Amino acid sequence: MTFRLLIFTFLFSCFAFAQQTKSATPPQMPPWLNTPEVHADNSVTFQFLAPNAQEVKLAREGTEPVAMQKDEKGAWMVTTAPLVPDYYGYSIMVDGVRMLDPYNHLLVPNLLTPANAVHVPGPGLPWELTNVPHGEIHHHFYRSTVCNDDRDYYVYTPPGYSSSAKTKYPVLYLLHGFSDDASGWTAVGHANVILDNLIAQGKAKPMIVVMPLGYGTMEMIHLGWGAWSHHDVRDENFSKFREYLLTEIIPRVESEYRVDKDRKMRAIAGLSMGGSESLLTGLNNLDKFAWIGAFSSGGIPEDFAKDFPGLDASANQKLKLLWIACGTEDHLITVNRNFREWLKEKGIQHTDIETPGMHTWMVWRRNLSAFAPLLFR
Amino acid sequence: MTFRLLIFTFLFSCFAFAQQTKSATPPQMPPWLNTPEVHADNSVTFQFLAPNAQEVKLAREGTEPVAMQKDEKGAWMVTTAPLVPDYYGYSIMVDGVRMLDPYNHLLVPNLLTPANAVHVPGPGLPWELTNVPHGEIHHHFYRSTVCNDDRDYYVYTPPGYSSSAKTKYPVLYLLHGFSDDASGWTAVGHANVILDNLIAQGKAKPMIVVMPLGYGTMEMIHLGWGAWSHHDVRDENFSKFREYLLTEIIPRVESEYRVDKDRKMRAIAGLSMGGSESLLTGLNNLDKFAWIGAFSSGGIPEDFAKDFPGLDASANQKLKLLWIACGTEDHLITVNRNFREWLKEKGIQHTDIETPGMHTWMVWRRNLSAFAPLLFR
Repeated sequence: MTFRLLIFTFLFSCFAFAQQTKSATPPQMPPWLNTPEVHADNSVTFQFLAPNAQEVKLAREGTEPVAMQKDEKGAWMVTTAPLVPDYYGYSIMVDGVRMLDPYNHLLVPNLLTPANAVHVPGPGLPWELTNVPHGEIHHHFYRSTVCNDDRDYYVYTPPGYSSSAKTKYPVLYLLHGFSDDASGWTAVGHANVILDNLIAQGKAKPMIVVMPLGYGTMEMIHLGWGAWSHHDVRDENFSKFREYLLTEIIPRVESEYRVDKDRKMRAIAGLSMGGSESLLTGLNNLDKFAWIGAFSSGGIPEDFAKDFPGLDASANQKLKLLWIACGTEDHLITVNRNFREWLKEKGIQHTDIETPGMHTWMVWRRNLSAFAPLLFR
Repeated sequence: MTFRLLIFTFLFSCFAFAQQTKSATPPQMPPWLNTPEVHADNSVTFQFLAPNAQEVKLAREGTEPVAMQKDEKGAWMVTTAPLVPDYYGYSIMVDGVRMLDPYNHLLVPNLLTPANAVHVPGPGLPWELTNVPHGEIHHHFYRSTVCNDDRDYYVYTPPGYSSSAKTKYPVLYLLHGFSDDASGWTAVGHANVILDNLIAQGKAKPMIVVMPLGYGTMEMIHLGWGAWSHHDVRDENFSKFREYLLTEIIPRVESEYRVDKDRKMRAIAGLSMGGSESLLTGLNNLDKFAWIGAFSSGGIPEDFAKDFPGLDASANQKLKLLWIACGTEDHLITVNRNFREWLKEKGIQHTDIETPGMHTWMVWRRNLSAFAPLLFR
């Protein structure tokens, strides 16, 4: 066998697998597009191949879909204006149907709508990988008795963490939103990178971050986007989440890691559905949590007196921080303002954060970057 | 704000993000397809929406692409024959362009051709999640001096592993193939589940499994599928991989984990490109490795005397196992047979494994399930 033939043979196998197939005749090399392409001015060119489509649009996180134009080679294309450095989720709408970009390996895992992301680098931003000591991400699997299923959770340990050292660490329980999976805060939120950078700069205390699966019942996902109109499922989702977090996740983490179990060393925060879970779990268990963060929270009926029975100004003695953030262009801004008004009427101290932005990970990465430095002081 | 309005508002935000956009007018609910759908007889129905496409095919790992038919609602559809239980990678070919399935959250991460997978469950198979004690997956990040980049590696620790206990564990270095990323063996190969099950059944010794990024230079990926024709890059890829594994990964792992450093407690195995890396690294460093596995290996020129200088029958005293496997329908079967013939001429003992199958993960999961029980005996 000649060298050339060997290489051909190897490539053949690669291509065959690349196309998820294997045939008796050499398959064609898949057409290749360099997309998305980030330019020096931070504009980004997206390309997509759909030779027979009538209408192709780029749907980028936080913007209206924009039309792509077919070029002379048959590829649909659009170039954005220069973008603020960040990671942007996106999909391609082809004749009204949401598609992933098959040429971009940067995926946004999601249980209902997986998508892609493009990274526009910005030196100095908290989620940029830098040459500082890195923490470690641990992926755990177990069978939940409360939820009656097999599930997973992720744990970030900070640089220098050692299970055999004497140091005990504070813990932030960090919750994802509806449709995310347990990897959301690391794979999309880059929480590990944010913590690495904040810790290296001395801006955040070294802490353990626990990122559990955020559903009390997976029926919430099986029902798809319509799940929220099934109020019994929605209510079970919130109540079982709280139960399994308190009776399974926290005990597991506290037996597996060197954790300071003092309530002043335990925080809970989350985004969207996870923001509501943080409020419901945290404010109703102030004997366990002293630090609470809610980022763009939503999904609970606005019957606050029912959701937080007995909550009054005496909570101020236990709360080290109640941090409530929402983007001003997020439609959830109204319910967040209403909730803060209710807290004010009750005399419960809290921090109001309104930032530019919609219901996007760009907002939540900034929320975490601002929130984490406040903890465990 | 009424309860109904609140729910609408929340859903609105979810949908908006789902579509990676947010508009001033309510976006349409994305069309939803239940795909892929595994039936009781293990046949699978795949659906895809491409209203203006002329030709849509299902390209499933290990098979020829098959045509999908447009149904009355405009969805393209095909139902397979009953399948052997497994995880199958697949893509959808739309007018000749490979697409991902936007309705399936089960993704196959890959640096060149991300894809989807469908799970046809089969009780008792080694990669099926069962209610046995689970190991843990650790994800590490560091800056490589040898490769001059930031990279990651995964480490599986078996159930009951404790960094503070006295037990020291053997280690398998397990390498992915060309185009995979470091998550390949866990996300696609389900190596952690396979090890959990084999260990629970007493079929494999508890071991640590280290899964590093398999490239000596990322230029191999930047050049895409054509990289193999750049011989200087290919050669640098193999040589730097070997160097960084030996001088960075192994020392890191042996300082981070409770590892038995005896060469008889160190194995190396991999698939495709990783199979060649296992042979090149293992057979040329028998002072460090006693167990070597190559699954469907390929990618090195067939100049074995040059690749393995000085290798002769004296290796038999050091080799506990040299296990060379390939699918009989894989085009790499010829080079694997030639290599085994060369080993035979040299008088080097090895185990020949030929199984049904092509260049697919279905073969490699079975390879690992057969290989791991042999180790560290």
